[in-house]
Amino acid sequence: MNAEIICVGTELLLGDVVNTNAVHIAKGLAAAGINVYYQSVVGDNPQRLKDSIRLAFKRSDLIVMTGGLGPTYDDLTKETVAEYFGRKMKLHQPSLDHLNEVFNKFYSGQYKKMTENNVKQAYMPRGAVVFDNKNGTAPGLAVTDGNKTAVLMPGPPREMVPMFDNQVLPYLSRDSKKVLVSKNIYIFGMGESAVEDMLHDYMLSMDNPTIAPYARTGEMYLRVTASADNKGQAEEMLSPVVDKIQNLIGDYIYGIDVGNLETAVVRKLKEKNLMVGTAESCTGGWVSKQITGVEGSSEVFGCGVCAYANETKIKVLGVKKETLAQFGAVSFETAREMAAGIRKISGADIGISVTGIAGPGGGTEQKPVGLVYIGIDSKSLTETLELTLSRGYQNERDHIRYTATLRALHSILRAANAF
Amino acid sequence: MNAEIICVGTELLLGDVVNTNAVHIAKGLAAAGINVYYQSVVGDNPQRLKDSIRLAFKRSDLIVMTGGLGPTYDDLTKETVAEYFGRKMKLHQPSLDHLNEVFNKFYSGQYKKMTENNVKQAYMPRGAVVFDNKNGTAPGLAVTDGNKTAVLMPGPPREMVPMFDNQVLPYLSRDSKKVLVSKNIYIFGMGESAVEDMLHDYMLSMDNPTIAPYARTGEMYLRVTASADNKGQAEEMLSPVVDKIQNLIGDYIYGIDVGNLETAVVRKLKEKNLMVGTAESCTGGWVSKQITGVEGSSEVFGCGVCAYANETKIKVLGVKKETLAQFGAVSFETAREMAAGIRKISGADIGISVTGIAGPGGGTEQKPVGLVYIGIDSKSLTETLELTLSRGYQNERDHIRYTATLRALHSILRAANAF
Repeated sequence: MNAEIICVGTELLLGDVVNTNAVHIAKGLAAAGINVYYQSVVGDNPQRLKDSIRLAFKRSDLIVMTGGLGPTYDDLTKETVAEYFGRKMKLHQPSLDHLNEVFNKFYSGQYKKMTENNVKQAYMPRGAVVFDNKNGTAPGLAVTDGNKTAVLMPGPPREMVPMFDNQVLPYLSRDSKKVLVSKNIYIFGMGESAVEDMLHDYMLSMDNPTIAPYARTGEMYLRVTASADNKGQAEEMLSPVVDKIQNLIGDYIYGIDVGNLETAVVRKLKEKNLMVGTAESCTGGWVSKQITGVEGSSEVFGCGVCAYANETKIKVLGVKKETLAQFGAVSFETAREMAAGIRKISGADIGISVTGIAGPGGGTEQKPVGLVYIGIDSKSLTETLELTLSRGYQNERDHIRYTATLRALHSILRAANAF
Repeated sequence: MNAEIICVGTELLLGDVVNTNAVHIAKGLAAAGINVYYQSVVGDNPQRLKDSIRLAFKRSDLIVMTGGLGPTYDDLTKETVAEYFGRKMKLHQPSLDHLNEVFNKFYSGQYKKMTENNVKQAYMPRGAVVFDNKNGTAPGLAVTDGNKTAVLMPGPPREMVPMFDNQVLPYLSRDSKKVLVSKNIYIFGMGESAVEDMLHDYMLSMDNPTIAPYARTGEMYLRVTASADNKGQAEEMLSPVVDKIQNLIGDYIYGIDVGNLETAVVRKLKEKNLMVGTAESCTGGWVSKQITGVEGSSEVFGCGVCAYANETKIKVLGVKKETLAQFGAVSFETAREMAAGIRKISGADIGISVTGIAGPGGGTEQKPVGLVYIGIDSKSLTETLELTLSRGYQNERDHIRYTATLRALHSILRAANAF
């Protein structure tokens, strides 16, 4: 089946909002074996919306749309699709009940009573399949005629994402006798092109399971997907492929189905019953921010110090004045003392430190922008890494800080693994 | 002039990459008075790419494209556009020189010598205007025939953004006698719909300058744009409009042309010669991470403590054991002592603290998920705010932490203003 994604909203056309919905839908459809050949964005304009739907159905059998399901006069997606399919609109009582409930629960005073235009959200084209919306007011829907299907979902990602994952994807796969199961293999320290180089022939030789590389800032992952008659069979097919990849690049794999580096860190520390403390200069708290973004991180993290000034490095972390005077704040020696210092004051098993020059100012010939030291202090592993993170481009402050954060997280993982 | 944006790349179709380019281009074109009616994404497929260009030129005079300018066999945008316009490809010597220079400078050993397929990037359709690429290898270009123009830029945002801002936009406005000047008015603490409600009639009544609202997570800004014969005249036209908006909602305006809250904070602290110290529990370092993201922030920030555990609150920040025992970590009293503590140990003029329940676990009936306290301690302003940041949706940990971070930054600004 071929599909197109149409995102509706003048705010997308004007660039007020980044279109994260298209990414999420494209990924989900690809994993379900549905080919996406086009994505488009149109404004809240009935004629252009109609033209886009007509064009898309000429090229594809499935259109997945987001946006334009709200209560206001310029929310027109549902009505335009109903017109395309020649269906009348009809009140969907469960949706109206849900709307009343939401207004009762979350609004107060004069706003408790739903206004007339909100009722519009409960009207559906005849014969539509309705997807209820647990995270907002506008329900989603699917309309089918022959081999043409339109799926409509609300625009806000926090409403669209769970609806797509839990209701739309199962709906689209309802006729499929096959089950798709994926494993995501997370890789750090090896670029996408290096991984592709290494696995190129193997990836091409594979038909089922398939292997697809996904790049992210500073890291990447491989998704291995098997199609089979049932889950057990799919998992049996995945297992030798995952093993083979682990044999080839195992040193760079930090987790399977773990989602991201910080989650891998928190899980590993929990598993080994360890605590970590952070001492950050140039990353300014980004490492601790990432760790504490993971639910339940308080079991493995209790104390971080953002030692931006030399005074803080001395007073709070116990870095020696002489060290700073002799080697400077951005040095092997300072990183080492910062890591030892935070381990001591936090009482953690692993102390991690980051100190560097994020730029754009502050660089010298000896210590250029992008020079970063990461210190690790623990019973199992004590070392200091020197990194040069500049790529010679402009405006790299964020890139340098984020890359240093990822390297620090990866260093915590390595230290934990050494226990 | 009507325009369309076409982003080329299978990685966009598959959802591997979020399309931030489209947003940036859409914003820039809108500000330049160019209407964007469609955006689309196509894969690296020559036939579908050709179809998309043909369709777009039926509807629009200008196509702005990104991606597919690289060295590999599936980078086909330039060749497809050349074919559409019936132009032969020709070596562009300055682009080849630049390529050689980049390879010499950033690569070493065997990679210093450019491979044959890289030379492809220096070939241009005859008659093209070439935009050099200071941040990568593939140059951009524009091809015009009659009233139809195609602009092609590389896909990586760090290459595309400066090329678009500094070269493409001036190129597209080259025939315009008018100058467009904008002022961005940054607003915090008032939602987009409330601002629109308040300014609705005024915004509709304006033709030149125009006023456009832009929403961002937890904040928003208004862009006021004047079109005039020269910059001075445009600025004269802007000034009474900005004044009027300041009269109407001045309490909520935190800066003009300041970019974001953290930059406003750093600027204000510099201006008043003040330092701030941060003590964070539930935000885990996000406040200090934002502050230190601003270049030159070391002048106003030297010390932050991420006091995730109670022990750290006691040992490092000097919160009283009894306070924690009697009122708990998430309380007015603890927030107050954390703010006073960080002010003391950092020696800063302003101490700011955040403590709360980010969820999804840890909430109780008395202290539900989303309850956050922000403490401010300074000579000019000492207060504690109680916030309830949950909206009743699922997976709000990030939302709660980010909103708390913004409120903390805004509190620093208020404290600095009170000096």
